[in-house]
Amino acid sequence: MATLMENEVFMAFTTYATIVILKMMLMGPMTGYFRITRGAFSNEEDVSRKSVEEKKKLLRTHPDVERVRRCHQNDLENIIPFVLVGLLYALTEPELSTALLHFRLFAGSRIFHTIAYVGALPQPSRGLSWIVGMLVTFSMAYRVLSTVLHL
Amino acid sequence: MATLMENEVFMAFTTYATIVILKMMLMGPMTGYFRITRGAFSNEEDVSRKSVEEKKKLLRTHPDVERVRRCHQNDLENIIPFVLVGLLYALTEPELSTALLHFRLFAGSRIFHTIAYVGALPQPSRGLSWIVGMLVTFSMAYRVLSTVLHL
Amino acid sequence: MATLMENEVFMAFTTYATIVILKMMLMGPMTGYFRITRGAFSNEEDVSRKSVEEKKKLLRTHPDVERVRRCHQNDLENIIPFVLVGLLYALTEPELSTALLHFRLFAGSRIFHTIAYVGALPQPSRGLSWIVGMLVTFSMAYRVLSTVLHL
Repeated sequence: MATLMENEVFMAFTTYATIVILKMMLMGPMTGYFRITRGAFSNEEDVSRKSVEEKKKLLRTHPDVERVRRCHQNDLENIIPFVLVGLLYALTEPELSTALLHFRLFAGSRIFHTIAYVGALPQPSRGLSWIVGMLVTFSMAYRVLSTVLHL
Repeated sequence: MATLMENEVFMAFTTYATIVILKMMLMGPMTGYFRITRGAFSNEEDVSRKSVEEKKKLLRTHPDVERVRRCHQNDLENIIPFVLVGLLYALTEPELSTALLHFRLFAGSRIFHTIAYVGALPQPSRGLSWIVGMLVTFSMAYRVLSTVLHL
Repeated sequence: MATLMENEVFMAFTTYATIVILKMMLMGPMTGYFRITRGAFSNEEDVSRKSVEEKKKLLRTHPDVERVRRCHQNDLENIIPFVLVGLLYALTEPELSTALLHFRLFAGSRIFHTIAYVGALPQPSRGLSWIVGMLVTFSMAYRVLSTVLHL
């Protein structure tokens, strides 16, 4: 088993995969932060200590909360495919430099994507960073399919 | 490391996993396509070049966009578990023919599921394809647990 | 390949990963159950046999359905990162007892999280179980990064 974690490409994959997953997981607490500071909850038990009138006010959506949630959803839609395809890609024994280029480009593009999304930066900043991430995953998927196609 | 990618079952898993992940990822651009053609956006910065009046009109939901998004969500809920359980399943060294049956049935059912969902085909077409995909994953999970249970 | 499934830590990971994925997948049928019993659907083809008036009534959201869906979403946001980071963690050859502690704590916390969410138990029951799950994944990610960092 140790052989996998002695392979440099696999170690690089492990590092960047963990980083982007941690980035994705931080959207959870960030949603919680915005829910509390903006006063916008979705579960009655989350506002149970408040008066009836206050409860009604707090059980609502808020644009800032929805924005973070959309960003989190976009992470689920893009980071998880990257990690899954990247795992298979790392097993096809690509060149270390090529693999690192893919992993770094993806991690950078997704970190910038979050900044662009949560900060509501003018387009096409968010759109471009999303496309770069997609292209990295497509490129890895192409390498995987062209190396081990077995239908 | 190379040994994994020389195993036929693992190669077959890699192929079908990549195919269904690519299918899932295509829902992203499809959502974008429907957002643009139907004029239904969720972020203010996406319509920043428009007049104030037009902006209000464009920041809305549209049934076609929501339909594609529900289909994407259903993919996340079903395709990712398939890939994760399938990876572990492939490592339990099942028969190649049995494994291929699982992978092909899943890929076929999810491609049909997307057609049924986006095309709004009459039920139970969508429901049945969803159930077939679930059963394939349950069957693989059963094999995994009965082979390597270690609580 | 067989070596992976002969490793006790990897077998334990495989077992608990499959269990939490199955738990997550059960939220799908549970959503279906609540949609039918509460009469709240989102697709027109799902209510096609009803009269026009009934259709309008049934194409709505219902608090119970939305609650299960939020629980499902929270699973996607937490269980998938656990499985992905856990896979890499298992490959770093941790102590079996330490690994089992992580896996059991996570599985327990997420099963309790579902009970607390669907049952609308008073806070902080749901919040605490969510945090425990997050901390387990963070702890595994820390071990992974401190063992194989390769930027």
